[in-house]
Amino acid sequence: ALRELLQELHFADIAEILEELDSDDATYLIKLLASDLTSEALMELDDDVREKILDRLSPTEIAEELAEMDTDDAADVVAELDHDVQQKVIEEIQDEELAADIVELLAYDDDTAGALMAKELVQVKETWTVAGCVREMRRQAENVTRVHSIYVTNKEGKLTGRLSLKDLLTASEKTKISEVFIPKVDYVTVHTENEEVARIMQKYDLEAIPVVDEDGVLMGRITIDDIVDFIKDEAEKDYQMAAGISQDVEADDSVWQLTRARLPWLVLGLFGGLGSVYIMQGFEEALNSFPVLFFFTPLIAAMAGNVGVQSSAIIVQGLANDNVKGSLFNRLIKEVGLALINGCALGLLVILFGFIVGQDQLVSITIAVSMLSVIIVAALIGTFVPIILDKRGIDPAIATGPFITTSNDIFGIFLFFYIAKIILGF
Amino acid sequence: ALRELLQELHFADIAEILEELDSDDATYLIKLLASDLTSEALMELDDDVREKILDRLSPTEIAEELAEMDTDDAADVVAELDHDVQQKVIEEIQDEELAADIVELLAYDDDTAGALMAKELVQVKETWTVAGCVREMRRQAENVTRVHSIYVTNKEGKLTGRLSLKDLLTASEKTKISEVFIPKVDYVTVHTENEEVARIMQKYDLEAIPVVDEDGVLMGRITIDDIVDFIKDEAEKDYQMAAGISQDVEADDSVWQLTRARLPWLVLGLFGGLGSVYIMQGFEEALNSFPVLFFFTPLIAAMAGNVGVQSSAIIVQGLANDNVKGSLFNRLIKEVGLALINGCALGLLVILFGFIVGQDQLVSITIAVSMLSVIIVAALIGTFVPIILDKRGIDPAIATGPFITTSNDIFGIFLFFYIAKIILGF
Ligand SMILES: [Mg+2]
Ligand SMILES: [Mg+2]
Ligand SMILES: [Mg+2]
Ligand SMILES: [Mg+2]
Ligand SMILES: [Mg+2]
Ligand SMILES: [Mg+2]
Ligand SMILES: [Mg+2]
Ligand SMILES: [Mg+2]
Ligand SMILES: [Mg+2]
Ligand SMILES: [Mg+2]
Ligand SMILES: [Mg+2]
Ligand SMILES: [Mg+2]
Ligand SMILES: [Mg+2]
Repeated sequence: ALRELLQELHFADIAEILEELDSDDATYLIKLLASDLTSEALMELDDDVREKILDRLSPTEIAEELAEMDTDDAADVVAELDHDVQQKVIEEIQDEELAADIVELLAYDDDTAGALMAKELVQVKETWTVAGCVREMRRQAENVTRVHSIYVTNKEGKLTGRLSLKDLLTASEKTKISEVFIPKVDYVTVHTENEEVARIMQKYDLEAIPVVDEDGVLMGRITIDDIVDFIKDEAEKDYQMAAGISQDVEADDSVWQLTRARLPWLVLGLFGGLGSVYIMQGFEEALNSFPVLFFFTPLIAAMAGNVGVQSSAIIVQGLANDNVKGSLFNRLIKEVGLALINGCALGLLVILFGFIVGQDQLVSITIAVSMLSVIIVAALIGTFVPIILDKRGIDPAIATGPFITTSNDIFGIFLFFYIAKIILGF
Repeated sequence: ALRELLQELHFADIAEILEELDSDDATYLIKLLASDLTSEALMELDDDVREKILDRLSPTEIAEELAEMDTDDAADVVAELDHDVQQKVIEEIQDEELAADIVELLAYDDDTAGALMAKELVQVKETWTVAGCVREMRRQAENVTRVHSIYVTNKEGKLTGRLSLKDLLTASEKTKISEVFIPKVDYVTVHTENEEVARIMQKYDLEAIPVVDEDGVLMGRITIDDIVDFIKDEAEKDYQMAAGISQDVEADDSVWQLTRARLPWLVLGLFGGLGSVYIMQGFEEALNSFPVLFFFTPLIAAMAGNVGVQSSAIIVQGLANDNVKGSLFNRLIKEVGLALINGCALGLLVILFGFIVGQDQLVSITIAVSMLSVIIVAALIGTFVPIILDKRGIDPAIATGPFITTSNDIFGIFLFFYIAKIILGF
């Protein structure tokens, strides 16, 4: 009865049910149900949950689940297993072609099209007729959940074009494929980076893209559903990184997992804060004559932090979307201009505040001027640290959030007291 | 010659060229080229650039471009025009069906499936045969760039199922559609929110989803390329919001646009900072006995801010993905537990630092204890402000970044001095 009930459900819904159960019950359900029902659900699970379930399955049971998956998913599951289990599982796979596909897919670098693609696709030869093509297509299509495009290859298996199902429906039976196929086809190679694949598929509104090797031989295809997942995951990782969370965690993860993701950035922030303590000790003599300066340090730190985070967020996003154009010098001028406008507006507010609370005017002006300088420096750090990281091949996304706020706190507070010392002369 | 060169390009590439040109040249190019080339490129442009070009086109010229667009894109372009221009443009559209479609699409609420869908789709009746269906399909398919699914409707036009192209290729000519169609079909209504549409399409790996009205009548369909754009845009907006950027801006926007997006949050931060000044003035008496406390305010502000941003980022993401489960009380316990672990670890580091620099031990302990309290409160604010906003129907995403750091700075500094005062008794 339970089996019939679940038979009706979509695999993504079965996955949601599995996530609610504890690992033993979930494993029981997986074993109870036919693999054609559970294998796709298994793929939709959160990594942690899947890991626990796979731990409880024998190599043979895992191999049975793999047999029902698309090759890309099967390879991903195998990649998650321990190395010795991997071997056993691959040996247990009955279908030799599937086993070979998995071994091939495992060999590609993570973060490349090779590791993202599936081997399932519909491929026809240039020399065939439309009728032969439809016949062959029906055969191949059995393994392919959805046919997006039919890829056309030459004798050596090199990708030469594509054919739309629409064209196939409208062409006469005896036409040669070489006469009707579209020779213009977007593709990537097995070494293209995931980010680039996503960019191309989004730009050209593709639902699937063929993947070729160095010689242009058709190796597999990537479908948009996997790119949607990739885009979503990347966005969530970047968002977390900007918030000072260094591992992929969720609200419902354990306290221990959350601590491991959060504590490192907090420790960095603590060292930054201790750095500020050290700097202020160096300006201790101001305590007697201008104690009010010390009341303004959180404001200075906040401005340095906020401006830095804004600048870095814009530049990190611009770098990711490849729309940071123009020379570094122009960017410098622009950032300084922007910081000047914001800084002057905020400085006037500080002077106004000083006027209202009856603060010494020279002190107010000193604070406004120092703050303006801090804002300019913060904007420059926020802009150029990501650009420099990017030039050196480091992901600029790490240089936002706590990284920028911490470094800007230290620079900002030093600069603030240094300029105050020059103007007020304590 | 230029025309021939551009003829070869994909519309997304033409769009990139247009973005490089100034508005007059871009407009010249749009007028020079046939609308079937430029209309899609026009859609790919950044809003600002498109606005400037449309300003330079007459209603008739705009209508010509619209004629070559998909209905969803055409409606979006019309929606961007001023109200009086809208009317003129719609009157200039030759194709009455297109004009009616645009008027219909404009009537739906922004952020709903109705405003996202296109009217182009392939629709067949249950009562038709496969042969009749293929004939009719060929006719309809002319307007539809890519056929994802064929939707099956009954006499009243209500969606009853779908048909895959694959099935159509394999079924015999005389079969009735009612015998071969799949009665299970995912769909949304015209009122479904965009976020929900994206969630469903991602969950079920759909390339297109049909949209029905309140009575189940098939009204349009949404394709995954538009959902990919939506997911990307939303992620970028959330990222910017968390960084204190309140409008959709890019690195290459004007200084004025960037100022409008950034200054409001900086002013908020400034007021927060002035609030901290006010609070510290209230604890002025500590200046004589324990001046070192004032050196620690940036550290306290940094910890309050970082912890708050971490907590809020996790909860905002959890709310967006609908995976914040369990009672509020359990979440409270968890956040406090997490904050205790992090706070104790950081507190020990502060005491260790005090020991190294030879600071009074009671002062070190005071700072550690106050910091621990600040971290707990910051975590609670970061967690529960988004939850409360969400319950009240406000987008919780605004309650990250500068919003949380600013409020946590104020609360944190007050709490720090308040607890220090109790322990040290100044
Ligand atoms: Mg099973
Ligand atoms: Mg893979
Ligand atoms: Mg696109
Ligand atoms: Mg598009
Ligand atoms: Mg896949
Ligand atoms: Mg990235
Ligand atoms: Mg701060
Ligand atoms: Mg034109
Ligand atoms: Mg629309
Ligand atoms: Mg999916
Ligand atoms: Mg999937
Ligand atoms: Mg569209
Ligand atoms: Mg959102």
